[in-house]
Amino acid sequence: MDFVPDARTESLRADLLAYMDECVYPVERQFHDTSDGTWHRPAVMAELQAEAKRRGLWNLFLPDSEHGAGLSVTQYAPLAEVTGWSPAIAPEALNCAPPDTGNMELLSMFATPEQQARWLTPLLDGEIRSAFCMTEPEVSSSDPGNLTTRIERDGDEYVITGRKWWSTGALSEDCRVLIVVGVSDPGAPPRDRYTMVLVPRETAGIEFVRGLSMFGFTHSASGGHAEIAFREVRVPRESLLGVEGQGQALAQARLGPGRIHHCMRLIGMAERALSLMCERALSRQTFGHALADHGAVRDWIAESRVRIDQVRLLVLRAADLIDRVRAVREEVSAIKVAAPAVTEWVMDKAIQVYGAAGLSQDTPLAELWVQARTMRFIDGPDEVHRMVVARRELARYRRQLR
Amino acid sequence: MDFVPDARTESLRADLLAYMDECVYPVERQFHDTSDGTWHRPAVMAELQAEAKRRGLWNLFLPDSEHGAGLSVTQYAPLAEVTGWSPAIAPEALNCAPPDTGNMELLSMFATPEQQARWLTPLLDGEIRSAFCMTEPEVSSSDPGNLTTRIERDGDEYVITGRKWWSTGALSEDCRVLIVVGVSDPGAPPRDRYTMVLVPRETAGIEFVRGLSMFGFTHSASGGHAEIAFREVRVPRESLLGVEGQGQALAQARLGPGRIHHCMRLIGMAERALSLMCERALSRQTFGHALADHGAVRDWIAESRVRIDQVRLLVLRAADLIDRVRAVREEVSAIKVAAPAVTEWVMDKAIQVYGAAGLSQDTPLAELWVQARTMRFIDGPDEVHRMVVARRELARYRRQLR
Amino acid sequence: MDFVPDARTESLRADLLAYMDECVYPVERQFHDTSDGTWHRPAVMAELQAEAKRRGLWNLFLPDSEHGAGLSVTQYAPLAEVTGWSPAIAPEALNCAPPDTGNMELLSMFATPEQQARWLTPLLDGEIRSAFCMTEPEVSSSDPGNLTTRIERDGDEYVITGRKWWSTGALSEDCRVLIVVGVSDPGAPPRDRYTMVLVPRETAGIEFVRGLSMFGFTHSASGGHAEIAFREVRVPRESLLGVEGQGQALAQARLGPGRIHHCMRLIGMAERALSLMCERALSRQTFGHALADHGAVRDWIAESRVRIDQVRLLVLRAADLIDRVRAVREEVSAIKVAAPAVTEWVMDKAIQVYGAAGLSQDTPLAELWVQARTMRFIDGPDEVHRMVVARRELARYRRQLR
Amino acid sequence: MDFVPDARTESLRADLLAYMDECVYPVERQFHDTSDGTWHRPAVMAELQAEAKRRGLWNLFLPDSEHGAGLSVTQYAPLAEVTGWSPAIAPEALNCAPPDTGNMELLSMFATPEQQARWLTPLLDGEIRSAFCMTEPEVSSSDPGNLTTRIERDGDEYVITGRKWWSTGALSEDCRVLIVVGVSDPGAPPRDRYTMVLVPRETAGIEFVRGLSMFGFTHSASGGHAEIAFREVRVPRESLLGVEGQGQALAQARLGPGRIHHCMRLIGMAERALSLMCERALSRQTFGHALADHGAVRDWIAESRVRIDQVRLLVLRAADLIDRVRAVREEVSAIKVAAPAVTEWVMDKAIQVYGAAGLSQDTPLAELWVQARTMRFIDGPDEVHRMVVARRELARYRRQLR
Repeated sequence: MDFVPDARTESLRADLLAYMDECVYPVERQFHDTSDGTWHRPAVMAELQAEAKRRGLWNLFLPDSEHGAGLSVTQYAPLAEVTGWSPAIAPEALNCAPPDTGNMELLSMFATPEQQARWLTPLLDGEIRSAFCMTEPEVSSSDPGNLTTRIERDGDEYVITGRKWWSTGALSEDCRVLIVVGVSDPGAPPRDRYTMVLVPRETAGIEFVRGLSMFGFTHSASGGHAEIAFREVRVPRESLLGVEGQGQALAQARLGPGRIHHCMRLIGMAERALSLMCERALSRQTFGHALADHGAVRDWIAESRVRIDQVRLLVLRAADLIDRVRAVREEVSAIKVAAPAVTEWVMDKAIQVYGAAGLSQDTPLAELWVQARTMRFIDGPDEVHRMVVARRELARYRRQLR
Repeated sequence: MDFVPDARTESLRADLLAYMDECVYPVERQFHDTSDGTWHRPAVMAELQAEAKRRGLWNLFLPDSEHGAGLSVTQYAPLAEVTGWSPAIAPEALNCAPPDTGNMELLSMFATPEQQARWLTPLLDGEIRSAFCMTEPEVSSSDPGNLTTRIERDGDEYVITGRKWWSTGALSEDCRVLIVVGVSDPGAPPRDRYTMVLVPRETAGIEFVRGLSMFGFTHSASGGHAEIAFREVRVPRESLLGVEGQGQALAQARLGPGRIHHCMRLIGMAERALSLMCERALSRQTFGHALADHGAVRDWIAESRVRIDQVRLLVLRAADLIDRVRAVREEVSAIKVAAPAVTEWVMDKAIQVYGAAGLSQDTPLAELWVQARTMRFIDGPDEVHRMVVARRELARYRRQLR
Repeated sequence: MDFVPDARTESLRADLLAYMDECVYPVERQFHDTSDGTWHRPAVMAELQAEAKRRGLWNLFLPDSEHGAGLSVTQYAPLAEVTGWSPAIAPEALNCAPPDTGNMELLSMFATPEQQARWLTPLLDGEIRSAFCMTEPEVSSSDPGNLTTRIERDGDEYVITGRKWWSTGALSEDCRVLIVVGVSDPGAPPRDRYTMVLVPRETAGIEFVRGLSMFGFTHSASGGHAEIAFREVRVPRESLLGVEGQGQALAQARLGPGRIHHCMRLIGMAERALSLMCERALSRQTFGHALADHGAVRDWIAESRVRIDQVRLLVLRAADLIDRVRAVREEVSAIKVAAPAVTEWVMDKAIQVYGAAGLSQDTPLAELWVQARTMRFIDGPDEVHRMVVARRELARYRRQLR
Repeated sequence: MDFVPDARTESLRADLLAYMDECVYPVERQFHDTSDGTWHRPAVMAELQAEAKRRGLWNLFLPDSEHGAGLSVTQYAPLAEVTGWSPAIAPEALNCAPPDTGNMELLSMFATPEQQARWLTPLLDGEIRSAFCMTEPEVSSSDPGNLTTRIERDGDEYVITGRKWWSTGALSEDCRVLIVVGVSDPGAPPRDRYTMVLVPRETAGIEFVRGLSMFGFTHSASGGHAEIAFREVRVPRESLLGVEGQGQALAQARLGPGRIHHCMRLIGMAERALSLMCERALSRQTFGHALADHGAVRDWIAESRVRIDQVRLLVLRAADLIDRVRAVREEVSAIKVAAPAVTEWVMDKAIQVYGAAGLSQDTPLAELWVQARTMRFIDGPDEVHRMVVARRELARYRRQLR
């Protein structure tokens, strides 16, 4: 057993920390102030991306060493954590932001050379962005077994009809392609029921109904969260991603490492919040004492450290298992329950230490909290992941009892 | 001991419930959709107010029977709860929304006849609105003993210099008067240090720096939360409210009943959230069962009922004490700790039952949650109120030990 | 609405507080030290009972004014709370201890004059004690629908065969009668399936298998918690309590007020723990400060006060409903969930303030904690009571949805 | 980074698991039933110890490879976890039970050859047992800086006067030596104030006042928890352990690995409780379903797994740091806070699943719970350990702020 990261990770982490200090934190205020609510990313993003490329901090997430950095999940995890310190900027600046990351993974694994040339290459270069259209308003995200959007073959075309929402990034004009999941064979069992197609954003029949807010945030700078109506949207047969009817398997390939990334970024956000909490606790006075001298505040700081360290280890162990074993559904469910809970708790306490400033735009804390709270649903709510963990735990004893 | 409301309360409550059903809920969607982010209230508010007046549901909050409804705090409390079911609309529609309520209480108690004619009468008629400028960016709201804004006498004028924030409602043009608290005698002990003055919103030297957001919400429809710079703002001596140097006593007179109202509205919000949670639990299916059949969801519903009922009784008991005894600082601190905690918990679970819809604009839940979370600071953070409660508890034993 | 107890309650409460101070607390140490683990009550109990009778503090629990004090549930509740301050002694000293209280209620309502003369009179006089034999080892207490002990008619006798446990008090020789619940008609629906009989403790065929412990405590001074085997135990037909087949209805009549009493005693225990916590916090020094100066300790004290006050109001409201309406199953379930949770929390913190002394025999805290923890099962586990509360809550909306 | 135990650990763990299955679990019932409350260990212990020696599972805790197994802390940790599955038996059966483990570590590091021959050798052989006398009734265990027991030089002797409690194991006649910590130089700073001496248990002037209980458990089978009065107890100068005045440093050397062991055993106890919870959930029916089909029970099982896995990783990381770095005070404080909290939670849920059986002697759960609860004090209460963690966390930022 050994808890020390390897040399390549350590070296990249040092470079990334320098990049955060020199490039990212200094422009955070500017980035937020130039977000004008019109689904355009602030101009500074292009500069940040150029600098990240220059420093060799580009596409770190992609284990595929042809297109990406060739890092294992365990090696990338501590880097994802660092990007979580500035989650609205750093992941995208490094071309490591969802949903593009998962989409690039899908395209690198399953796309044809023509599809890769058209979509993967510009995505890898950060020239375009993409969206992933799976969640639907009328279907519980905890039980994706009953999506209703149809993807039907009609001669040489697929015809898409349905409604999607929470398609993150889709409202930005930089977004050029939507990966749409729909029902191709309604009578088949779930594993053969779904198909994925690549749909250019400007295709006729697509209506961007509205942006959805998360608490009061629209996340306009990164293209928001779209509700999209597909009204007999037609794409040629070559738009098929992978094999017809295999959409569910593709969607799941996307999830394991993606959840590790999500959780590690959350941990980075929690560290940021803890850092802000400590700074405030030392600098703010009430009743003649620094907040850091109040017992409740010290307890929050200690508990934050204890909880963050635990959950980080759990996520890293899951990453290690993904790298070595692949099939780790329960371990991934475990981190999906644990990481949002810890980070939400830490952020709540950090906000409390800041008082009213903590819920305003003057600190990143309210936005960080929303990220953590939201993660208690994204990719399945806590309740479903607990069920997955319990099922395996019980299965061990069920066998014994027979 | 007797847990049944009196007849007048019951009768007004029935009228208010009918008004909510017939007038408020039907326009909620329209109200939100016509909020255009420009600090103007949607036009429908005027109609709602006219109807509330017509139905005798106007100024219910004001115990003063000359200007208001003459209800005791205990009588008004269950009505405030009902308005919490639609907190962005109903309180204002009944002219029972803070900060105007507290301001009207101050003016009815301490203003001169001229001040009352100029400001109280139009406020009571709902023709204008007002703001209360006390909180400052550089001073912990948990320890108001060191406000820095100066209110200095200069001949026949007061000169105001300083910076305030979280002045709710001040960004709306309907707001015509600011009640400003500042230091008039820096060397005096706190109880003689502060003075309150009435400042017309358009006075020279006032800059409305920006609106503050709460978890992304700007609350523009009700005039937002302003940061305001006062740069040698001059008002005539007649602007003094009450007695010079007695600002702290005035501020505290405003707090007791105001906190009861806040807490009862919160309880109404929690009931709304519980109601939404039950509706969703019965109508949404996952894995072949209604959510209401899942054990975790049922536990949340049961716990919500148990917690809400407890905290309502605690608030009502505090209201009863205010009506009978007046000095109930610890009881008010107790409800300030308990009510936001309960309601935040209930709303969190309601959001979880709704999944992603629960954090979007499609339900009121995210906004309700923000109200509850915010109340863990407003009028003093939990930590300070716990200190107040603990101090009295310990004092009993300290006496015995001697 | 009115939160003030009536005059008779206040007067009895003053008398009872004096009795606690003068008679009960002074002998607590002696009582515990003379418990010799042999299922005999310490001799001092007889003196305490005589004094309670003398002071008119006897049988206060019994609403029946012929045999008891004639207090309503709401009037008795605050007195039950006071007895909770010394729960191993005071309830029994006042002849107000379960299971005798519930047994006396049953006998006063359903027993024949002969049965009353034989068992109720000496119970009311405190000359004998009784046990209630319902819970069985192989049956979940959360689902009593499948008791297995048989009570069969055989000529002029009933024959009892089966195994009971957690029969509190049965190991004491002062216990003279067991009220046994068993299946008389296995094919009938639950409401007609059970019968209750009165069984003299010395009847042939009864084996007292062992005493059960609760977290190491045997509660020997009050007769322990017995596991009892009934092997063809025969009693004459006149032993039938009430009507054959109506055992379930009788058992439920016993529960409502009994749970109010349980919860109020728990609240008294929590007050005792809070009192001890405050005394220790003021008198114990660590790191140069009294514990009361540590923020965490103050927070515990404040939260204890806030939680206790809330739950007491909830229990009193349920008592008021029982007095006025009778059928309050959900309200009783609500207090069964809320009261043990609050009191367990308070006791845990009190123990933490005492450190190792808090878990030893040097304070009553460990025993009090066990009472609270145990109440999360007794008369149904939390999970079942939450289900009851949720069911009614959902039923309201189910009706609307139709 | 690597989460796989090394080969030697794996091999010993397999042997230990076999030993538990074949030797320990089968005698658990017998062990408890033959504990007669007289401070003697049941006879079966000697057989278990002989068998452990035979299987090479003896003194595994001792890193010193001359006297012990030569395992690192990280290697021993997973073995300590396994012994936690039967904490009243397995640690002692392997000669790995506190306080003997810490005492043997002290003796192997600091004792003279004569002292080692007299005390260490028979301890290593399991022929005698020992106690550690540090905690005092009048001094907060959170702040050991003010012990009052005196150890004074008088000619060729040390004279010990004072009162100790919670001296675990001291009531057993197998215990032959007490390691006593006392004040030798009251005027010195704490690091030079204390001295340790070795005191034969039968020395004149020692009074074993009583056994202390933990909740209702006396732990008589392992020698209980003694309160001991030392009345001018005289021992020769050769009884000094280490250097006069260096008692505090010695006491701390004992703590780091000891806390790792404590925490790993707790984790083993939690795994045992989880295992019992799963078995019961699968085998017990209520309302026509196995408990495992109830959502709340499944959630508990899942949360237990998630929490246990996290805290185990945290403890293992601390062990790794001890092996590599030694000075890891904050990491050890972190696990002292985290491990008892997790395990107490798991055991509480397991008890709830068992209902009343869970608090009786029919399962080990009540005893396991008491172990976990108690660990929130032993070796310093949570509050102190949180302070240690917070202090370091804040120190990082304090430096930056300068």
